Amino acid sequence: MTGTTLDDYTDRYARRVRGMTASEIRALFAVASRPEVVSLAGGAPFVGALPLDAVGEMIGRLVSDHGPTTLQYGIGQGTPELREGICEVMALSGVDAGCGASPDDVVVTVGGQQALDLVARLFLDPGDVVFAEGPTYVGALGVFQAAQAQVRHVSMDDDGLVPAALEEAIAAAARAGQRVKFLYTIPTYQNPTGVTLSEARREQVLDICERAGLLIVEDDPYGQLGFETEAPRPLRARRRDGILYLSTFSKTFAPGLRVGWILAPHAVRDKLVIASEAQILCPSAFAQAAVSTYLRTMPWQEQLKTYREVYQERRDALLEALLELMPPEMTWTRPGGGLFVWATLPAGIDAKAMMPRAIAAKVAYVPGVGFYADGSGAGNLRLNFSFPTPERIREGVRRLGGVIEQDLATRRIFGAVSASGPARQRRPGADAPGPGLA
Amino acid sequence: MTGTTLDDYTDRYARRVRGMTASEIRALFAVASRPEVVSLAGGAPFVGALPLDAVGEMIGRLVSDHGPTTLQYGIGQGTPELREGICEVMALSGVDAGCGASPDDVVVTVGGQQALDLVARLFLDPGDVVFAEGPTYVGALGVFQAAQAQVRHVSMDDDGLVPAALEEAIAAAARAGQRVKFLYTIPTYQNPTGVTLSEARREQVLDICERAGLLIVEDDPYGQLGFETEAPRPLRARRRDGILYLSTFSKTFAPGLRVGWILAPHAVRDKLVIASEAQILCPSAFAQAAVSTYLRTMPWQEQLKTYREVYQERRDALLEALLELMPPEMTWTRPGGGLFVWATLPAGIDAKAMMPRAIAAKVAYVPGVGFYADGSGAGNLRLNFSFPTPERIREGVRRLGGVIEQDLATRRIFGAVSASGPARQRRPGADAPGPGLA
Repeated sequence: MTGTTLDDYTDRYARRVRGMTASEIRALFAVASRPEVVSLAGGAPFVGALPLDAVGEMIGRLVSDHGPTTLQYGIGQGTPELREGICEVMALSGVDAGCGASPDDVVVTVGGQQALDLVARLFLDPGDVVFAEGPTYVGALGVFQAAQAQVRHVSMDDDGLVPAALEEAIAAAARAGQRVKFLYTIPTYQNPTGVTLSEARREQVLDICERAGLLIVEDDPYGQLGFETEAPRPLRARRRDGILYLSTFSKTFAPGLRVGWILAPHAVRDKLVIASEAQILCPSAFAQAAVSTYLRTMPWQEQLKTYREVYQERRDALLEALLELMPPEMTWTRPGGGLFVWATLPAGIDAKAMMPRAIAAKVAYVPGVGFYADGSGAGNLRLNFSFPTPERIREGVRRLGGVIEQDLATRRIFGAVSASGPARQRRPGADAPGPGLA
Repeated sequence: MTGTTLDDYTDRYARRVRGMTASEIRALFAVASRPEVVSLAGGAPFVGALPLDAVGEMIGRLVSDHGPTTLQYGIGQGTPELREGICEVMALSGVDAGCGASPDDVVVTVGGQQALDLVARLFLDPGDVVFAEGPTYVGALGVFQAAQAQVRHVSMDDDGLVPAALEEAIAAAARAGQRVKFLYTIPTYQNPTGVTLSEARREQVLDICERAGLLIVEDDPYGQLGFETEAPRPLRARRRDGILYLSTFSKTFAPGLRVGWILAPHAVRDKLVIASEAQILCPSAFAQAAVSTYLRTMPWQEQLKTYREVYQERRDALLEALLELMPPEMTWTRPGGGLFVWATLPAGIDAKAMMPRAIAAKVAYVPGVGFYADGSGAGNLRLNFSFPTPERIREGVRRLGGVIEQDLATRRIFGAVSASGPARQRRPGADAPGPGLA
């Protein structure tokens, strides 16, 4: 009835957003952004590595020479020019015309986040189950939870998603009569772990999903940010069908423009466009022109190389500092690319409970619990190496090591406050990376 | 279970998007954008009226001087700088600090469309009822239908929404036990009619909604585009509570940047931010910097004046051409601002059925049926005057008049193909504007 008040409305909605952790992370970032704090908490690319004068000149001309088009409304699917550019970018990773990737099947989105949200809007009903790596991208969890879907984590190790665990999850869902809508996976330089699904497992995961008729949502924001070696080809480069491929220019060009995309099977593409039009009418013609002109007129592959070099140096700084400055009970991943390292604290230390002490010591990270839908991850934390300089990274790890040592000392004196089972004690060596993955 | 195919998925979703008319309108725009066609179908502002060289220079400097910020991620609510600028813009219309409008309560969105979508996401459950003017903005209908809400149109006349009709709709919903979530209204220079809710009725509508505890969603994209006289103050300038106020820079600056906003009561604002973060993570830092720098450093109020003058001249051209070239059975609105005129065809002519003949005669419009959720509007069409030049407008009306005359002649010879009741025969005079509103 009409007799409800605004408070009633908001109370009703409050039930719907239950479980979202975005606001917690937001509060954390607000603290972490203070200049005196070394933030290993972010996920920001180092856009300072771009040739800003040249990009500025290019972008200015988009208005002075082409304003009547770039400042105007566009079409919901995105400009043909950008969709062609996107296909060239995907071809670098092996997702090309040979595997049926056509500009016609690309939908331009407001960053990778809108891509995820459109997929959720298209496919998820309340109560549906989504499989995802454990841990996984916090923004995906937010989308799935907003859609009132249940996330079932599939365990990982150093080679990524464990195929046997995926098969087991599928069987368990079948026994429970659950409706599983898709597997959401970030197979390459995953957020938050930095782990990559191995070559051999890619085929296994594809086979398992094909047999089960399970749609795969492949999120690939980091695939072109490999360091020593190139990343294995995306899942979508191996199969045409049953995969929605999502990516973004946020990590390879600039997140401030908010340009991402979905490569979708033809039948789905139209519905994604309709859903996107209802949501945002059309993506920014200006941002699209900025990206497509950047791809057409500037040395974007050289820029990718620059990003890779900068991030590799910073990853090395982080791994070296961890090895030197962390207590021996600590473990962590050794990512071959991307932006993140995932660390496991000594047994019994809770990453979220430790945050106030870390902030007091002027260092920030993201507690691992935010990357799980089921409360796991208490002993984990995500460390970002793309944004801070090597010197800042080293200083941050030094501060973090001090906080952890202090927590360990407190525990030795007073005993554990909350026991949470024995942590894995494996310490990474040069050729045997520690996973730190529950 | 997991054994569903991609086709099953899309079939399922196909049920959800039923009722959307966006794709029809998209197809229409594709035809209408051919250069030989005079399009009165669009809704585009004339961004060519902007000082493109100066804007280009300003925008280029945002990258060369401030790239590390403007190309980076931002926060979900939008930058404080832009939210302050938005409050200055709203103050021009009377929505100011005095009525509790604070930068803190503004949420920046991807144009007005995302604002609408967030409101729908926050408040609408399947089966809910939304009241809206009949006719109303087609993009709002798309959002409400995607949310599986039912739209009940409230009738309008030359003074806008009819208060008695609103009261009747509220009573009818109460009798039927329906859950009405809000009144969606565009009170000023409405899309598609150009009609403005009169000063006296604004208070009546507010009182009615307050008594019924009915939330108002006030959409105000055109309020600052008044011609001879200023628009009445927005509803939100009159009451603090129970109103969500939506607007956009698409009509007053440039739609290609996709920047709009919601002014929301404090309790709702946080939830809108969380919902927006799940949808797009954050609005474009670059687009926000472009708008806030435009507001801070360029003569934006002068630009508003320019837009008004250009549009007034074009509206006059449209109204004069209609008066001169249309058959006497035709009626239309005389908007005091905005972008659109709403016309009513001679009895028995169907605007959608006439489209192929209009396109053959190289003129395009939007058939009225798209602006109703209930199939009304067959005899109506929306004519845009903001984008085409006065000469093109006159030529378009000449072509359209020919098509209508031909349809009338055919009807006189062969009789009506589909009778749809007598149309209103009132022809607008200089001081007695014809409403053409069912």
